[in-house]
Amino acid sequence: MTSKKLVNSVAGCADDALAGLVACNPNLHLLQGHRVALRSDLDSLKGRVALLSGGGSGHEPAHAGFIGKGMLTGVIAGAVFTSPAVGSILAAIRAVAQAGTVGTLLIVKNYTGDRLNFGLAREQARAEGIPVEMVVIGDDSAFTVLKKAGRRGLCGTVLIHKVRVPYQDTLANLAQFSICKVPLALGFLKIPGRCPKSGRLVTPSLRGPISVWAQVAGALAEAGVGLEEITNRVSVVAKAMGECRPGDREEDEEMAASLSEEASEALLPPGPMPRAQWSPVIHTSFLSGTLGVSLASCSVPGSKPTFELSADEVELGLGIHGEAGVHRIKMATADKIVAIMLDHMTNSSNVSHVPVQSGSSVVLMVNNLGGLSFLELGIIADAAVRSLEGRGVKIARALVGTFMSALEMPGISLTLLLVDEPLLKLIDADTTASAWPNMAKVSVTGRTRIRAAPTEPLEAPDSTATGGTDSKQMVLVLERVCTTLLGLEEHLNALDRAAGDGDCGTTHSRAARAIQGWLKEGPPPASPAQLLSKLSLLLLEKMGGSSGALYGLFLTAAAQPLKAKTDLPAWSAAMDAGLEAMQKYGKAAPGDRTMLDSLWAAGQELQAWKSPGANLFQILTKAVKSAEAAAEATRNMEAGAGRASYISSGRLDQPDPGAVAAAAILRAILEALQGQGA
Amino acid sequence: MTSKKLVNSVAGCADDALAGLVACNPNLHLLQGHRVALRSDLDSLKGRVALLSGGGSGHEPAHAGFIGKGMLTGVIAGAVFTSPAVGSILAAIRAVAQAGTVGTLLIVKNYTGDRLNFGLAREQARAEGIPVEMVVIGDDSAFTVLKKAGRRGLCGTVLIHKVRVPYQDTLANLAQFSICKVPLALGFLKIPGRCPKSGRLVTPSLRGPISVWAQVAGALAEAGVGLEEITNRVSVVAKAMGECRPGDREEDEEMAASLSEEASEALLPPGPMPRAQWSPVIHTSFLSGTLGVSLASCSVPGSKPTFELSADEVELGLGIHGEAGVHRIKMATADKIVAIMLDHMTNSSNVSHVPVQSGSSVVLMVNNLGGLSFLELGIIADAAVRSLEGRGVKIARALVGTFMSALEMPGISLTLLLVDEPLLKLIDADTTASAWPNMAKVSVTGRTRIRAAPTEPLEAPDSTATGGTDSKQMVLVLERVCTTLLGLEEHLNALDRAAGDGDCGTTHSRAARAIQGWLKEGPPPASPAQLLSKLSLLLLEKMGGSSGALYGLFLTAAAQPLKAKTDLPAWSAAMDAGLEAMQKYGKAAPGDRTMLDSLWAAGQELQAWKSPGANLFQILTKAVKSAEAAAEATRNMEAGAGRASYISSGRLDQPDPGAVAAAAILRAILEALQGQGA
Repeated sequence: MTSKKLVNSVAGCADDALAGLVACNPNLHLLQGHRVALRSDLDSLKGRVALLSGGGSGHEPAHAGFIGKGMLTGVIAGAVFTSPAVGSILAAIRAVAQAGTVGTLLIVKNYTGDRLNFGLAREQARAEGIPVEMVVIGDDSAFTVLKKAGRRGLCGTVLIHKVRVPYQDTLANLAQFSICKVPLALGFLKIPGRCPKSGRLVTPSLRGPISVWAQVAGALAEAGVGLEEITNRVSVVAKAMGECRPGDREEDEEMAASLSEEASEALLPPGPMPRAQWSPVIHTSFLSGTLGVSLASCSVPGSKPTFELSADEVELGLGIHGEAGVHRIKMATADKIVAIMLDHMTNSSNVSHVPVQSGSSVVLMVNNLGGLSFLELGIIADAAVRSLEGRGVKIARALVGTFMSALEMPGISLTLLLVDEPLLKLIDADTTASAWPNMAKVSVTGRTRIRAAPTEPLEAPDSTATGGTDSKQMVLVLERVCTTLLGLEEHLNALDRAAGDGDCGTTHSRAARAIQGWLKEGPPPASPAQLLSKLSLLLLEKMGGSSGALYGLFLTAAAQPLKAKTDLPAWSAAMDAGLEAMQKYGKAAPGDRTMLDSLWAAGQELQAWKSPGANLFQILTKAVKSAEAAAEATRNMEAGAGRASYISSGRLDQPDPGAVAAAAILRAILEALQGQGA
Repeated sequence: MTSKKLVNSVAGCADDALAGLVACNPNLHLLQGHRVALRSDLDSLKGRVALLSGGGSGHEPAHAGFIGKGMLTGVIAGAVFTSPAVGSILAAIRAVAQAGTVGTLLIVKNYTGDRLNFGLAREQARAEGIPVEMVVIGDDSAFTVLKKAGRRGLCGTVLIHKVRVPYQDTLANLAQFSICKVPLALGFLKIPGRCPKSGRLVTPSLRGPISVWAQVAGALAEAGVGLEEITNRVSVVAKAMGECRPGDREEDEEMAASLSEEASEALLPPGPMPRAQWSPVIHTSFLSGTLGVSLASCSVPGSKPTFELSADEVELGLGIHGEAGVHRIKMATADKIVAIMLDHMTNSSNVSHVPVQSGSSVVLMVNNLGGLSFLELGIIADAAVRSLEGRGVKIARALVGTFMSALEMPGISLTLLLVDEPLLKLIDADTTASAWPNMAKVSVTGRTRIRAAPTEPLEAPDSTATGGTDSKQMVLVLERVCTTLLGLEEHLNALDRAAGDGDCGTTHSRAARAIQGWLKEGPPPASPAQLLSKLSLLLLEKMGGSSGALYGLFLTAAAQPLKAKTDLPAWSAAMDAGLEAMQKYGKAAPGDRTMLDSLWAAGQELQAWKSPGANLFQILTKAVKSAEAAAEATRNMEAGAGRASYISSGRLDQPDPGAVAAAAILRAILEALQGQGA
């Protein structure tokens, strides 16, 4: 079975998706006739270097989401998981060149198709006289033994999009140099040649703290030194720090140790590769690393899932197209999986590890591969922060979101980028790119994350003045209410079975027992306001369900008017306040076939308590009768709120159990008070 | 089977996810002992109104992602899909009050549990003397007949988070009023009372263009008018525009039509609800609408999926917890589904529709419900923009991303918010909230989205000067190369079957036939540079695969040195340039068991062409022999690049077919040239 997808056609997926991104982002334009998106203010970039990236579709928001001031100039998108067409890459290069940019840097993920197609377009553009350079990003930390193909380009590419442009903008008048400097800022310059010891062909690389290269080159640039001179001076340093191609590790180390500035002359290419002396194909290896993990495969539109995983397995180290990872591991907790990932990524016996250790400062990216819930993403982010900080790593910035997806793959990748202050400034620089997150520009590690709980208000002194006459009366009333509700349990459940889930009696009995238990603990507060407040908390905690919340609301609100006075007008106002709160938050109105019907009817009668000289029992008796009539009348009502509202009125021919219970409570109160001759 | 989730424990999901969000965002703090996140600069908000929101977890980045300057002050999170605890809501209210804020507005989605729990906390806080108001958001446009419970709160809530705060900030010195004004800006004020005609209990609402209320209240505020006076003045307008509770539609309309300022006095509550006169429970109904659609269910951690959908069905109008929608529809194209959604949302016979019509100005949100690929999200965004613009609707802003998710549900929701300029200013206002997108602050509708294709460079005049002596010689060479490759087809395929996918011969034959066909069309360009460039394009288009790209690269690069000169040193340089490009982008080196081995060996010999007086044939013959030896030597090599690199060396005992083909091509060139006595 092919995958279920919200698309117009399998063939048009990539076109439609890019069109949507451009349609919704006024900062972008499509290039006519090509699957290319460009900054809409392209013509304002005269004299600057253009940055183009791209690759197969299916990784959204990468790369078009990263177009904008401070990030990319444009992207070229291929079909889903397929390298873009050479013709479209060339068209994008021509478009930015014709807009007046002075050179183009291509940022390419390390996949064969991308390298070849971007490389071809580069060669063709250069043949037309357009200056074009290219960096290839490989940030994959999955493979512990080196593949000749090098590290794959994963989510770390997004960070490259971010940190390149500031150089471009500040060095606009040194376009050629800017191209050269940016790679310097992030990693390697390859110098093919023969190892002076073994005679084997090696590709030594420039390597060192990013800031060293940024400063070396940056200082020269500031001094107005030209490109050739900079290249020469930096190359001396580069040769001194020469290193064999990763993979020849032992030999590399021997060689690197033995190298002097003089000896390193031997590293100059023996003959046929003059242009490659400063190869623009540069890797970010060892300064950043990315590792993915997934719970299941994604599926390309029109195709079946790429792979199958059993219910208790996760795939570790997979690529962003569902390529196989390093191995499958047993499903485990988020903490455990994150620990395995970080161990793998930072283990020095893994040739593709990123040398993060205690004291290192990193940018952490927690990237949703597409289909994982953001709940889980947060859980993983929490685990990653705890684990890294537990290792003594300082997290300078953390980015959590969907940056480089693999369609709807339910998984994540973690990226670690070693940073120093200059690099961090680039990460923090403003950008208009739509997919770059709104990130706080302060360190994640080293701050308080907890705010102390607020102080609770002191209880009024009255709360301890329990046990007076009023209190005894209240106890008798409450006991009568409880007995009544317990006696009604079966009847209420039966009524509820016709309309709801048959637990109305059980719920009210639970409340009654909770009150009985509470009364046994000691005398209740003497103040009616405090009594109602306490009852509210008790019902909220013990009664449960909507009924508990509604009675809790009623009692909390009703308590307020009783704080100042406890005369009959105050009790009537308490009823009003309770009814108002119940309606406001519960969304029921009189006539909706709920407990409100009984209470409302009683409340209307109790208005009379507000008149001077009103009689307690006379009015209360009237109120109870009115409540009982209202409860009975619910028999003919359509349910307007609560669970019964989903049942057609034809099937409801019994009174509402909530309304019956409320009326019974009112009668119990009346009878208890009468029994005491209050 | 329960769902496969990256969590630590089912019980701890919501805690861990919130902790992760806070850990990665230095602008947030957790409130000790509660699942509450608050702005870390809380103490700078003295004298302002605090905005709190929240609800069940599982909707990330909502709501904690919307905390920040310009949006929320804090959020209270419940367990997954469960309302937050009253105690935590109360703790959050107390915390912001103790930090010196002068009042709190609770922004609550319209779900019973949320209404009750936030309502309870509000009542309790008010009982403590803390000013707290509450708005309930219902933006669901799913249900065509009115549910008494009202519209559910969906993604539109996020927009409310955004547009509230600017009021708060500009009106900081009028805290109470600010609370009042914000609801005014977005919709309704409910005034319970009896309909003057029918005598039925109704809840009339304030309604009108947002900007009217913003201006009415804003102007009063600017004039320094107090809360009571503002309330009185606005209430006159409100009563004149009074409207019955939605659902009593006919009656409402009759009543609204008949209302005069005097008659509307009758709408004042008859008695028992003084506080509800200006109820703070307000809806955004009719100014915004949201509708969801999903391809499948989500599953709560530890549980099974909430519902099942067959492969050809989608659920329309579902809630953000997987509640049933209005109906299931047959799977269709993205365009069709978006059209159905927009029809439903804007159809005036749907009581919960949003009255968007031709000429309306809207903010469009395209929200990923969690598990949909961002590729599909872009496709839906494209369809929505086209459909709305086709209806004459002006899209003022478009937000595309994950704002309010339903765990990993593969689906989307569309939200339309009617806007005018004042509201748009609030949408555009700066915020530090991490989940608010980096959105361009210009209109989506009414701009050019296409940039004209770049002009192609003019071909050099030489390109038409075909058919000279050199050209004839080239034709003979190419014909010999083609015949050779066609003769090797089966042999190359057999070699490839042992190491790759067995199509090496087929690929080379395809190239040969393409060249033969091209030669039949007319004589090739006389200039070697142009010939190689043309051949490069031909192979790229017709040969296909990595071989096509690599030969294309080789030829494109090799053509460059031949532009200026075509003597033997230039041909040697052409070979160098081709080899360099092939290595650089193809990532193979000599010794990697690829076609590069043969070409590299030949290239080393051809260096001799650079010496003065070098002999063409003598050196070329040596080069061909060296290439053949190198091809044969691949028999003992481990594959370092290409598909064969995934096969262990023990299983490789034949020479590499690509290397064999390259050597054969070189010999064909030599023999053809010798045959002509070049």
